Amino acid sequence: MTLIDRLYRRIADAGHVCLGLDTDISYLPDQLKKDNACDALFHFNREIIDATLDTAAVYKVQIAYYESLGLRGLNAYMKTLGYLREKNAIVIADVKRGDIAKTAEMYAKAHFTGDFEADFITLNPFMGMDTLEPFFPYLDAGEKGLFALVATSNPGACDIEGIIASDGESVSDKTGAMIKEKGVRFTGDCGYSLIGAVVGCTNKVQTKQIRSRLDGVFFLIPGYGAQGGKAEDMAGYLDKNANGGVVNSSRGILLAYKKPEYSGLGFAEAARAETVRMRDEILSAVKGKEV
Amino acid sequence: MTLIDRLYRRIADAGHVCLGLDTDISYLPDQLKKDNACDALFHFNREIIDATLDTAAVYKVQIAYYESLGLRGLNAYMKTLGYLREKNAIVIADVKRGDIAKTAEMYAKAHFTGDFEADFITLNPFMGMDTLEPFFPYLDAGEKGLFALVATSNPGACDIEGIIASDGESVSDKTGAMIKEKGVRFTGDCGYSLIGAVVGCTNKVQTKQIRSRLDGVFFLIPGYGAQGGKAEDMAGYLDKNANGGVVNSSRGILLAYKKPEYSGLGFAEAARAETVRMRDEILSAVKGKEV
Repeated sequence: MTLIDRLYRRIADAGHVCLGLDTDISYLPDQLKKDNACDALFHFNREIIDATLDTAAVYKVQIAYYESLGLRGLNAYMKTLGYLREKNAIVIADVKRGDIAKTAEMYAKAHFTGDFEADFITLNPFMGMDTLEPFFPYLDAGEKGLFALVATSNPGACDIEGIIASDGESVSDKTGAMIKEKGVRFTGDCGYSLIGAVVGCTNKVQTKQIRSRLDGVFFLIPGYGAQGGKAEDMAGYLDKNANGGVVNSSRGILLAYKKPEYSGLGFAEAARAETVRMRDEILSAVKGKEV
Repeated sequence: MTLIDRLYRRIADAGHVCLGLDTDISYLPDQLKKDNACDALFHFNREIIDATLDTAAVYKVQIAYYESLGLRGLNAYMKTLGYLREKNAIVIADVKRGDIAKTAEMYAKAHFTGDFEADFITLNPFMGMDTLEPFFPYLDAGEKGLFALVATSNPGACDIEGIIASDGESVSDKTGAMIKEKGVRFTGDCGYSLIGAVVGCTNKVQTKQIRSRLDGVFFLIPGYGAQGGKAEDMAGYLDKNANGGVVNSSRGILLAYKKPEYSGLGFAEAARAETVRMRDEILSAVKGKEV
């Protein structure tokens, strides 16, 4: 069983929530701020993880938040990844690296081994498909996977991803097709490849098209909650078995303890409650979906 | 005087060499390998820097090589950047980050302040021009700058950068035009902007076009030496004052001590000799160039 089969089973059991540990110091409750900042960050993450291990399908750790604090921040990043691995959780390191040849080999070593080892990493494919290849030895072993940026939902996504080629396809369309082709050899028993795609919420027509065009490509879907994405939008990205994608929420979960509906709960309990609510909301939307 | 004016003057004084500290442990001579790996990396970099401060225009540090060694590697990265700043050298951190909104703010904080502070950083603009904006407050102060990927020279560059839009322009062409427009407000007295572009060697016709289309955009040019680029190709990227670009060489300089022509020299002396040779070769090519 490869990593993608493990993720597929996990979703069938636990739902679709990808819990984003994009932890900013300012998110921490006052009682944690007494520690030094980087110990407090890890402490906060650890409690969130402990409270959500059975309700989050997978965790995504955004390295930028830790990198912004320098070496001590990256120490908290390392400890967070290590703790997740210790708990046998599936971890996506959101690093969006992208470089060529030997430099890409170095990024593969950095994020698939050693201090910063994760299960999946996100990649930026702008420089071309050869930037993915140095990661393939790790995928060949079935133990690591990639999510390449294909279609993001930020306002500027139209600038480059949205450029329309002479044949009528967008840069996102073409990137998706290339990612799919590259991933075929890494297809697991579940029918999905170890090379997935990051696809953000756009609109329902595009969503339906992207799911059918990119069959076999697992989706990492940002944009839920704080960024305005709704459960019914997310359901469109899933297949007839309601699988094939995970939906990320970061601030919506990490800051749940500040919402009126969770008043009286500690930050970890509120994060759990919000994860359960989000999981169930997506599961309901999936049930209500036309297949 | 902003950072780009400082770089412009530096090139007029010192030539066009961007010395790439993409330092891999395997590059180190045996006598350094007795230290622990990360101390040895910094030791190697420090001696190269000391030997080339008057002959290299600027240094580029590729973070992937350090990231691959985890926290201890990033400690060597931090010390290398710190040493370069102490020596008043201009430093480009080759990090190729690219993300949106708050995540991009975090990357700006990570690489323009604190442990990993550099003067310029490289960015990957795939997700759109809004990914650049969180860096602008640092550019407004005139003290920091960016190089965005525009046209790279790896075999896979055709995959996405080379897609031809319905109006006949490539993704690289369009990206270059957007970068240029974004950069206008950051133009220094020298006529160049604090937002530069990474442009790799392609062919002479394209080179001449890209220089004239992107007037005011400073170029970071990889591909010299180990990657096959020649001095006369590089000269095409420069303006009528033989300015407006720096040419990177990494392995060609770091591993100069293994070349027969430098036998008998230590690694730092050989790096200096190769930097001088490369500088003079480019200066000769520039003199011989039709303007």
